[in-house]
Amino acid sequence: MNQSDTGMDLFFEPRSVAVIGASNTVGKIGYKLMDNIVTGEYRGKLYPINPRDAEVFGLKAYTSITEIEGPVDMVVIAIPASFVLDEVDKCAKKGVKFLVIITSGFSEAGNIEMEKKVVKAARDGGMRVLGPNIFGLYSSRVSLNATFGPKGVKKGSVSIITQSGALGIAMIGMTASEGIGLSSIISVGNKADLDEADLLDYLASDENTRAIMLYIEGITRGERMLGSLRRVTRKKPVIVIKSGRSKRGAMAAASHTGSLAGSDEVFDAVMRQCGVLRAENLEEGFNWLKFIAEAPLPSGKDTVIVTNGGGIGVMATDACEKYGIELLDEPELLRKIFSSSMPSFGSCKNPIDITGQASEVNYREALLAALESDRVHSVMALYCQTADFEKVAYSEMITLIHNEYMRKHKPIAYSLVGGEEVTECVKYLRGRGIPAYQGVYEMVSCFGALYRFRENRLKEVQEEVRIDIGTEAICSMVDGALKDGRDFLLAHEARAVLEAAGISTPKSVIVRNIEEAVGAAERIGYPVVMKIVSRDILHKSDAGGVALDLDDREEVMDAYQLIIRNARKYDPHARIDGIEVSEMVHKGLETIIGARRDRSFGPIIMFGLGGIYVEIMKDVSFRALPLSRSEAISLLKEVRSYPLLLGVRGEESKDIEGIIDVMIRVGSILRSVKRITDMEINPLFVYERGKGVKVVDVRIMIAKDREE
Amino acid sequence: MNQSDTGMDLFFEPRSVAVIGASNTVGKIGYKLMDNIVTGEYRGKLYPINPRDAEVFGLKAYTSITEIEGPVDMVVIAIPASFVLDEVDKCAKKGVKFLVIITSGFSEAGNIEMEKKVVKAARDGGMRVLGPNIFGLYSSRVSLNATFGPKGVKKGSVSIITQSGALGIAMIGMTASEGIGLSSIISVGNKADLDEADLLDYLASDENTRAIMLYIEGITRGERMLGSLRRVTRKKPVIVIKSGRSKRGAMAAASHTGSLAGSDEVFDAVMRQCGVLRAENLEEGFNWLKFIAEAPLPSGKDTVIVTNGGGIGVMATDACEKYGIELLDEPELLRKIFSSSMPSFGSCKNPIDITGQASEVNYREALLAALESDRVHSVMALYCQTADFEKVAYSEMITLIHNEYMRKHKPIAYSLVGGEEVTECVKYLRGRGIPAYQGVYEMVSCFGALYRFRENRLKEVQEEVRIDIGTEAICSMVDGALKDGRDFLLAHEARAVLEAAGISTPKSVIVRNIEEAVGAAERIGYPVVMKIVSRDILHKSDAGGVALDLDDREEVMDAYQLIIRNARKYDPHARIDGIEVSEMVHKGLETIIGARRDRSFGPIIMFGLGGIYVEIMKDVSFRALPLSRSEAISLLKEVRSYPLLLGVRGEESKDIEGIIDVMIRVGSILRSVKRITDMEINPLFVYERGKGVKVVDVRIMIAKDREE
Repeated sequence: MNQSDTGMDLFFEPRSVAVIGASNTVGKIGYKLMDNIVTGEYRGKLYPINPRDAEVFGLKAYTSITEIEGPVDMVVIAIPASFVLDEVDKCAKKGVKFLVIITSGFSEAGNIEMEKKVVKAARDGGMRVLGPNIFGLYSSRVSLNATFGPKGVKKGSVSIITQSGALGIAMIGMTASEGIGLSSIISVGNKADLDEADLLDYLASDENTRAIMLYIEGITRGERMLGSLRRVTRKKPVIVIKSGRSKRGAMAAASHTGSLAGSDEVFDAVMRQCGVLRAENLEEGFNWLKFIAEAPLPSGKDTVIVTNGGGIGVMATDACEKYGIELLDEPELLRKIFSSSMPSFGSCKNPIDITGQASEVNYREALLAALESDRVHSVMALYCQTADFEKVAYSEMITLIHNEYMRKHKPIAYSLVGGEEVTECVKYLRGRGIPAYQGVYEMVSCFGALYRFRENRLKEVQEEVRIDIGTEAICSMVDGALKDGRDFLLAHEARAVLEAAGISTPKSVIVRNIEEAVGAAERIGYPVVMKIVSRDILHKSDAGGVALDLDDREEVMDAYQLIIRNARKYDPHARIDGIEVSEMVHKGLETIIGARRDRSFGPIIMFGLGGIYVEIMKDVSFRALPLSRSEAISLLKEVRSYPLLLGVRGEESKDIEGIIDVMIRVGSILRSVKRITDMEINPLFVYERGKGVKVVDVRIMIAKDREE
Repeated sequence: MNQSDTGMDLFFEPRSVAVIGASNTVGKIGYKLMDNIVTGEYRGKLYPINPRDAEVFGLKAYTSITEIEGPVDMVVIAIPASFVLDEVDKCAKKGVKFLVIITSGFSEAGNIEMEKKVVKAARDGGMRVLGPNIFGLYSSRVSLNATFGPKGVKKGSVSIITQSGALGIAMIGMTASEGIGLSSIISVGNKADLDEADLLDYLASDENTRAIMLYIEGITRGERMLGSLRRVTRKKPVIVIKSGRSKRGAMAAASHTGSLAGSDEVFDAVMRQCGVLRAENLEEGFNWLKFIAEAPLPSGKDTVIVTNGGGIGVMATDACEKYGIELLDEPELLRKIFSSSMPSFGSCKNPIDITGQASEVNYREALLAALESDRVHSVMALYCQTADFEKVAYSEMITLIHNEYMRKHKPIAYSLVGGEEVTECVKYLRGRGIPAYQGVYEMVSCFGALYRFRENRLKEVQEEVRIDIGTEAICSMVDGALKDGRDFLLAHEARAVLEAAGISTPKSVIVRNIEEAVGAAERIGYPVVMKIVSRDILHKSDAGGVALDLDDREEVMDAYQLIIRNARKYDPHARIDGIEVSEMVHKGLETIIGARRDRSFGPIIMFGLGGIYVEIMKDVSFRALPLSRSEAISLLKEVRSYPLLLGVRGEESKDIEGIIDVMIRVGSILRSVKRITDMEINPLFVYERGKGVKVVDVRIMIAKDREE
């Protein structure tokens, strides 16, 4: 049995399975399930439950789960929704561990209550639930094909978790026809109880799984899922395909699954943050999956392209730039490696172009030279069909090279461009598990995925930066506002929250006479700003109610009188609540820091350069919380306007440390005080390095604790 | 014969072909060429030239081209480079029309002079040259396969022009294995004489060609090529693949072909401007080519997706947004069209989801309903493999539907997702010329190409806006500067060029005493700016040598004295050349208009929002000249910061007409005065609508007329 403390061992390796709804009638799902389990040669005990037939598939049938004598680890349920709850109760009595509820007609059809009841009964009875509304699961460990999908699943080292049942069935077919072997495939459907996170935690330490693919339509319990993804991607490549990328697609997904798709921009950012490889579509995802499950991790970044055609060499170079692959670029070294295998017209620049005049021998020698050099860490072999192409000779040559060198743990793949003969050669090679492609981009894209996985593994794990913030003070502020019936904090409350968290805000006092004004100004320190405070005067400037840059006692006194006079003139009936004396904030580079509790992904933080950059250029980036220092830095670097922080046109670099400090404190607030749902510091002025940052305005939204 | 006045008829339909270097020796290019021409059943007269053998391929061989009795339209040359020139001279004597020079070792190997001599001799002798350094050409009109590529080219309606010979040979294979029939494929190699433009002009009116593909590595004579592309894309879809997209790829391409790749950003912009469909890579290009050569043009924008799986429906929706395809979105209408073919669980929202429970009959009915409705202009049929899938039944059903409805001129394509059985079904359909795909994105991307072609055809042709500019005055300014030995214009000269072209610049006069200063200010109009003019004072502000916003005579007089006094104090030895009195330019929205004579594409124009937007955000866009009004508008709309021109935060919209006027005038300058190589107006201040624009600074670079 697998070593794992996730409590999921019996889910992947049940010693006994019962099928409620097992049937002898062709066409029924209960028939197809039994057929698949039996022909799949499940290695445990199988108990069909059928109240009418004495035998199902030649096995003794039971009228009820409770009649079975031995223990039952897993029960697969395939009966109409209205009968499910009763059976769940019986399973609880029997001491079952896992329920696999195939049945549809629950929350996805609006029956949310019934689904909740089923899950509650199961959890109360000590059981976990997969589904409902799924096609089942396949687990190679015990050779269990408890799905109503196709038979003859190919065993291997890839695990797939899919939210869509229909697509999952098609995916079983796709893996088989692509020659991808499965360690497991699990349909999570409505995710009423078990979800991706539970399964990922197990698969992370499952030695039978080398690569994982997720197909996601909507997110539930995103924060937990992100945690699992962060852990598992340190060990194994995880490829995610999410449909509903587009606005209209997300609407279609929501109406199809009932779950929230979330903003695709945020999804994309947090997936990258978690080290997940996001594929745009199924073809790309399966393409990566097949390659990455087999390829050894390269020991370094230096890639070499060997080609017999200049044109495809250039295309591969383009693709390398697109997918972030580094080409070895040391002319002397390359000449040393390749000169002996190079015909006269060739080029030792990378791509190594051995030209169309190269023979099969030249080609093999160049590849061997690349594979034998310690300075070459991965190899892309391109072949452009010439009149000399011999299908059999090339197929055999590549097979030999491949078998020899994959064992040396250096990734290599082959792209062959041409007609029917070349197509057949590629097919032959793929049939032998060799990563051969017709498209140059198709091949390079796989290396891109592999290198991103490598990069992610090499990244140092950085812990969340934990900062002491005045949680109690913040909570009491929030509770007060909630008691007031508000879903937001007033300006001074919001500022107090930031101060409690160690983020300094402009000092500000409301005064009611000249003496108070002067006193406040002296305490705050000159220069100060003064503004009329009146619920009846909205446009303070228009009313002459603002005075800037007041440098001393005299100016403050004059300004006080002037403002009061102006306000009276502007509106004799205005109720004047006082005058606000504030620290004068000098203009810095405008930035925005936002944070919110996303319904899909949990707490996330946003950074952008302020004003027009955010509004017009949409130049913002996102991360999920908790945030490590290096994640905070990469968040800043992701905005296109990042060079402005480094200083342009001879300016000094800006106080990046100051921004990071505010982000980390904002993150801590959101993590510590669940009743805060939204924060926006806008603008945050950033000054030169060492001169700090200054919050100009902050907005905080609150809500009663939600059920977690 | 084809109706065409491009003089290229005999190139595509030569009545007789001679092969210099024709050979009986297997392995020689001259053997392969003869073999291909003979087995290809060329319909004209074929004359092998071989000084040693009496017969080649059973045909009488001639020792020299001059010995042939009848006329010879085309001569294919496949002998070493050093012998080519002699043969060209003989061909000229013989009155040959076209030379196809297969031979390599010319400019691509550094022998630029020899290539020039060959072309000159040919042109002097009334001949046009294809190549050198090519694999030849295939023309279906006379069944001529004058290539050393594969035999058995499939005849059809697609024409391919390729710069790479090696890749061209592979492309012949790819078309055959993809079932794409060729009207012609032409290898242009070094493009010493004939290039893409010559061939495109012919293909535009060639009734055998429905779609055109270009593979480009580097651009020569770009301006001419863009002209041809603009014309041909009004009639036929043109797909372009250009390698060297990336920086490193472009370097590799340059060293491989010797021709300039040009900036990929500019290439991309001008291709879009010319209505060209740019594919990222070969797979995408061939995918589009196959579809677009067969598909009827849709009569409108409304597309319907019919699917039996929610997941793939969502993915197709995502893909539609990516590729700019509009989904019919009228719930009532959709219900009317589809309700009768819809099973209970289904959804009449677009994508029309007939669910996995749908039978083959449901599926057919839904497709027929879509095809029969006049309100549906194109149809995407998605199928996600279910346990019920029957390969033969679906293959036949789709074939029937397809044959019936393509005749009704409505585009439809099929994406089938699943395993081996589905793969075979797709293969069966593709074998019958039906656009069936395994990948959803692959299919939708083809509709994207088709709809972009349609859009381009619907665009009104707008003529270049011709504006009278003072060409003579500009030329004399430029000539004067050239005589001075300069490659740039001085500030006042550059301003004078703009004034001559009708672009107003800030008025400015250099004065030497107070009276002149007052006179200048009165002529210019208040307020004015004054600045010290001294070759010894670089930092005018530091020296107290600048006075802004001078409102009247008094202020000008005071400022004059103050500036002189300050300058003397700052540097008693400074030589003072005078004081510049200029119109005071009020700050507007900063924009940049640039124009330059690009080495690859000819004259192009650039627009961007000024300052940080251009420097940091690289938010600029490009167009080739000449520029129509609508192109100028689309150029503006392409920058991401365009909303700033429309006014944000309650501002008025900006004077867009003013920007367009300046762009068109700048375009006219560059078109009319070839000696101007670069112009940059930076910044151009833009004010509110109706309030115009103002040039603040302009820089103009010049050069002696280059050989065209």
